[in-house]
Amino acid sequence: MISCHSVVNLPEARKVAIFGGTHGNEMSGVTLVNLWINNGAEVQRSGLTVKPYITNPRAVEKCTRYVDTDLNRAFTTDNLSLPRIEDLPYEVRRAQEINETFGPKGSSNAYDQSIAPASCSVLLNEHPLLHYSTSRSVGKHPIGVEVGPQPQGVLRSDIFEAMRAVVNHGLDFIELFNGGMEFEPCTVDVYRVSGNMDYPRDKKGNITAMIHPNLQDSDWVPLNPGDPVFQTFDGRTINYEGESTVYPTFINEAAYYEKQQAFVITRKETLKANGIRASNI
Amino acid sequence: MISCHSVVNLPEARKVAIFGGTHGNEMSGVTLVNLWINNGAEVQRSGLTVKPYITNPRAVEKCTRYVDTDLNRAFTTDNLSLPRIEDLPYEVRRAQEINETFGPKGSSNAYDQSIAPASCSVLLNEHPLLHYSTSRSVGKHPIGVEVGPQPQGVLRSDIFEAMRAVVNHGLDFIELFNGGMEFEPCTVDVYRVSGNMDYPRDKKGNITAMIHPNLQDSDWVPLNPGDPVFQTFDGRTINYEGESTVYPTFINEAAYYEKQQAFVITRKETLKANGIRASNI
Ligand SMILES: [Zn+2]
Ligand SMILES: [Zn+2]
Repeated sequence: MISCHSVVNLPEARKVAIFGGTHGNEMSGVTLVNLWINNGAEVQRSGLTVKPYITNPRAVEKCTRYVDTDLNRAFTTDNLSLPRIEDLPYEVRRAQEINETFGPKGSSNAYDQSIAPASCSVLLNEHPLLHYSTSRSVGKHPIGVEVGPQPQGVLRSDIFEAMRAVVNHGLDFIELFNGGMEFEPCTVDVYRVSGNMDYPRDKKGNITAMIHPNLQDSDWVPLNPGDPVFQTFDGRTINYEGESTVYPTFINEAAYYEKQQAFVITRKETLKANGIRASNI
Repeated sequence: MISCHSVVNLPEARKVAIFGGTHGNEMSGVTLVNLWINNGAEVQRSGLTVKPYITNPRAVEKCTRYVDTDLNRAFTTDNLSLPRIEDLPYEVRRAQEINETFGPKGSSNAYDQSIAPASCSVLLNEHPLLHYSTSRSVGKHPIGVEVGPQPQGVLRSDIFEAMRAVVNHGLDFIELFNGGMEFEPCTVDVYRVSGNMDYPRDKKGNITAMIHPNLQDSDWVPLNPGDPVFQTFDGRTINYEGESTVYPTFINEAAYYEKQQAFVITRKETLKANGIRASNI
């Protein structure tokens, strides 16, 4: 029986990788990691090895999402076990190199955390593709930090400073945990991904509508059945036909047109977390 | 002596080109022009030949600003007089083709208007590069329509509908003018480009600061001496050191990092316009 003050013992975390530039045109992560590579004082914590690292340097150089293929879908078991030859797509080779340096995936030697640049809303995504083939998936306890929306290739000070604060809080947490602090049981609101919505398209696959002005810039705002979601080029409104309230996010993301995704549909849940403390204190 | 009701006679305009996709990731122009290529009814006007046209189809296909070089700087006399060989950068070849179809530049045969997708503020830019080497420069009376800010690769319904309205108003104006309507003298507020401001950089050329939160999203808002403009990565504020009030625009544009431009500095002026009517009515 679990009491309401149950506390779980977990091993300490000693090695933290901070990944930036998995997508080369997402400027907060790129800029922060480059800053910390030049001067790591801000992210050092006692008893921790912290390694800031640019995962896709060629995409960063070109300020594009990727060079050959999406690095954040490249860490599949298949890719990681391919022979290392020059002919492989650039990002597949990088995935192999990163897995060797920070993994290997699933091994006890792997980095404990890899933090890859989310709003402070917790997005719970158990889709296998995102669970198992992102760059952060090489770590034992991967956390993705996504702060936005921020246009591709643009650095906004509000987004940059929010991401910086989140990463620093994460490191503070690990330091306190390693130092023996006990964290009380708590509840946390999460947004569980339940699907995604494509743009309306014609027979040739061309989009025929845009995100409706009421939905634009309304990430995490409740969307109710019958609320407008799209506006067609000929001026009609298309409403949400779902059966219950959902919470859309990643609304009108430039990078997701190619993934045929106008927005991600999430549902709000409250999860209970056990209390935790480090096991070897 | 010019009276306050002076009216100037000007020739009618008969051929209008609507250019979209000069930068392949600017989605309003791309989408509108493709829409009008499929169905031109919305942009037809009596007595006018209107031709919607994608100027940089390869960049549109890849959803990038350009393939080899900026098409909007490619229409130089030098480029247009180069022999047409396969080895030329893609955009230089396109500039030659477009000049042949819609120009040639400076000839009486050239299209009267080429409208290339500015806010409704009038930006007066007499910089030779923009004056003479943009794609719209092939027309006799080029007008650039820029509506934003809108992230690269993203189509926002508010921006899209504003651009659509501006282009339709422009066509209505030409139709009325051709039909003999006399337009009264008026005054118009313009923002004359007086320079541009680069990001603060270190000796290696890397930027060391971001647009200050007070300036971000404040296009066309007066910037006074002493107002904050940048925030450095180590938290210092850099203030505007100019001597008089200016009006910044194109603030923190993704495409302008490579042009070393954090924002464009303009000054507000009021210009007087003569009345006009068509000469051969
Ligand atoms: Zn990303
Ligand atoms: Zn442009």
